[in-house]
Amino acid sequence: MKAEIITIGDEILIGQIVDTNSTFIAKALNKIGISVSQITSVQDEKVHILQALKNAKANSDLVLLTGGLGPTKDDITKTTFVEFFGDQLVPDPAVLAHIKDIWKKYIKQPLLQVNLDQALVPSKATVLMNASGTAPGLWMEKESSVFIALPGVPFEMKALLQNEVLPRLSKTYELPFILHKTLLTYGLGESIIADRISNWESKLPKSIKLAYLPNLGRVRLRLSSKGFDKALIESTMAKEIQTLIPLIADVFVGFEEDTSIEQIIGTKLLETGKTLALAESCTGGKIAAQFTARSGASGFFKGGVVAYDTNVKITVLGVQKQLIAQHSVVSTEVAKAMALGVQKLLDSDYAIATTGNAGPAKGDSNADLGTVCIAIATPNQVYAQSFSFGKERHRVLIKSLNMALTLLQKEIFKN
Amino acid sequence: MKAEIITIGDEILIGQIVDTNSTFIAKALNKIGISVSQITSVQDEKVHILQALKNAKANSDLVLLTGGLGPTKDDITKTTFVEFFGDQLVPDPAVLAHIKDIWKKYIKQPLLQVNLDQALVPSKATVLMNASGTAPGLWMEKESSVFIALPGVPFEMKALLQNEVLPRLSKTYELPFILHKTLLTYGLGESIIADRISNWESKLPKSIKLAYLPNLGRVRLRLSSKGFDKALIESTMAKEIQTLIPLIADVFVGFEEDTSIEQIIGTKLLETGKTLALAESCTGGKIAAQFTARSGASGFFKGGVVAYDTNVKITVLGVQKQLIAQHSVVSTEVAKAMALGVQKLLDSDYAIATTGNAGPAKGDSNADLGTVCIAIATPNQVYAQSFSFGKERHRVLIKSLNMALTLLQKEIFKN
Repeated sequence: MKAEIITIGDEILIGQIVDTNSTFIAKALNKIGISVSQITSVQDEKVHILQALKNAKANSDLVLLTGGLGPTKDDITKTTFVEFFGDQLVPDPAVLAHIKDIWKKYIKQPLLQVNLDQALVPSKATVLMNASGTAPGLWMEKESSVFIALPGVPFEMKALLQNEVLPRLSKTYELPFILHKTLLTYGLGESIIADRISNWESKLPKSIKLAYLPNLGRVRLRLSSKGFDKALIESTMAKEIQTLIPLIADVFVGFEEDTSIEQIIGTKLLETGKTLALAESCTGGKIAAQFTARSGASGFFKGGVVAYDTNVKITVLGVQKQLIAQHSVVSTEVAKAMALGVQKLLDSDYAIATTGNAGPAKGDSNADLGTVCIAIATPNQVYAQSFSFGKERHRVLIKSLNMALTLLQKEIFKN
Repeated sequence: MKAEIITIGDEILIGQIVDTNSTFIAKALNKIGISVSQITSVQDEKVHILQALKNAKANSDLVLLTGGLGPTKDDITKTTFVEFFGDQLVPDPAVLAHIKDIWKKYIKQPLLQVNLDQALVPSKATVLMNASGTAPGLWMEKESSVFIALPGVPFEMKALLQNEVLPRLSKTYELPFILHKTLLTYGLGESIIADRISNWESKLPKSIKLAYLPNLGRVRLRLSSKGFDKALIESTMAKEIQTLIPLIADVFVGFEEDTSIEQIIGTKLLETGKTLALAESCTGGKIAAQFTARSGASGFFKGGVVAYDTNVKITVLGVQKQLIAQHSVVSTEVAKAMALGVQKLLDSDYAIATTGNAGPAKGDSNADLGTVCIAIATPNQVYAQSFSFGKERHRVLIKSLNMALTLLQKEIFKN
């Protein structure tokens, strides 16, 4: 069972938006045993969409499309679909009733013809009702291939995929089991890790594929396997991982599937009943946003102070003016004072503080561009380290975030 | 001149990472007049990569590849490239010297054979030196098509593209001018906007293409045009936009190319010498991170308090306990008190406060899931509004962010 994803929209091809839909669909298909062999993004042009459908049909059993199902003139997926299948559009009473209902309840404006037209569907399609929007999903078959068109608005696509598409696919096909396990490591480069584990890698069974994913101070090692004997796949994978972990024990922090580093930290804090606060200068709220993106953060995360302005460090966090004058605002001394300040202010057990020059312009400090000082306060002590994270602003911010989480994780797991 | 982008890596096809490289490349190519007709993501498998190269050659004049140039065993782009071109790998002395230099200066570990092997390049390739990493870019030609392979690590790819690839392409080809102008609107749905401007849309010259990009409380209208007469394209576009804006004046906030809403706010605050502070509960640092992602924020952004825990609202922001008891922590009253609290604490002119239940679990309030209260404090007054943003956590957070920025922008531009 091979699938292809086609995302439709000029906005992808001119680089105006990042195509996150295909990522979400690929992950969801993998979970039910369907491998994606290609993702193709094409323009809002009939001839391109038809060509992509034809190519996909030649290579894949399942084709999932997103985009171009909306009510405006640039939405042409439905009419193209109809041409590809030699079908015609007919009104669907259930979809029409649903659209009228949404308008009555939420939009409270006059219904326009373009809205009513969203109830037109190909006569041969199985209609997948879109509870979160007006454009229904469409399931069509041509010879042995299945084609599914979904709206491009991410939350509508996701709901349709999870509630309608995945259950139908699981019921229609006998699917294998796909297992990915990704080990998160922080602190070593990929070639050094590869060298360390080369003996182990050369002995890996053919059924397991290894990939290295390096990114700004973090390397992920992904092991993938696929087959119909779920128990065998899981036990083989577990055995290999058991052999691998001791080889990278000093840099391994956990598994990505189960977790992320902020989740590992959160779980440990919840277990031990400890709390966290943040004093962010150069990271400007990025660390807080990372923790609070997930639900459940309120159990351990008290909050933080984004002390962007130097004065905020003094007036809110209680950093001594003289300390800043003596060491400069980007210094390990100030980072430590910020961490202790927010730990006291928010009455937390642990605290992280960041202060640095992310560039491109220098701030209130003479420290080199890319210099970032990170402090960790624990219930017993405080310490700080200075780093050089290069000259590119975005990169400096991400490296600061990753390093702050790495340092905190090490402290929390020390005891 | 038509281009195709091929991104290589199983991590894309299993949905482990979002392919941001192709977005960046597509945008950069558009800027120098090259249209991208397709983006294709394929697996780390020789047969797939060869097939993608063959298809791309049939449809495009330029093919840009990223990924698979690293030092580990899963990196096979270079050997596949060599097979496609019937070429062979030879050592490049300049690349070798560069790798040795990086190792000596930064890595300070023994050089491994896999690192030395990164200096092997196809004999017919023009080597593009990678100043930020060890894998060089490769420029190859086959008949009339140009193929360029770049590393997949985003900052290496970006530097190579900007410093090596784009200047060479601009020099090699006579390229047209591509113009995109995107109008940001907040507050109306796409079909209602489409209805309002339908007369104008039907009279648009054929050379201009219009697209609607709806997303959670925001609709972007993109006008695109392309040709060799830059002055004509610009004047036609300007004329059409001048007619369009009055039709959507109540929801139009600015142009995306020049700016984003947070940049419009930042520029206005800098011009008027005013400052901003944030008190974020449910948005958890997201608004602060949005402002500080760009350089220059320190000129107007004082900082903020992430008051995730109810106690932080009381002890740090000075919200009265009784006010919370009376109205609940998710209320317009508490939002207003938070905004005034942070405005005073950080001595700012403007302040935003957010408090809400983003879900999925209810917090310290009985307010419905998805309820978010947003307050704006100005130098003269404070007001707050309550919103229902649905049940999906991520969606609630993004809608809160967009609405907070919309409300602040309206206040700032009132005077």
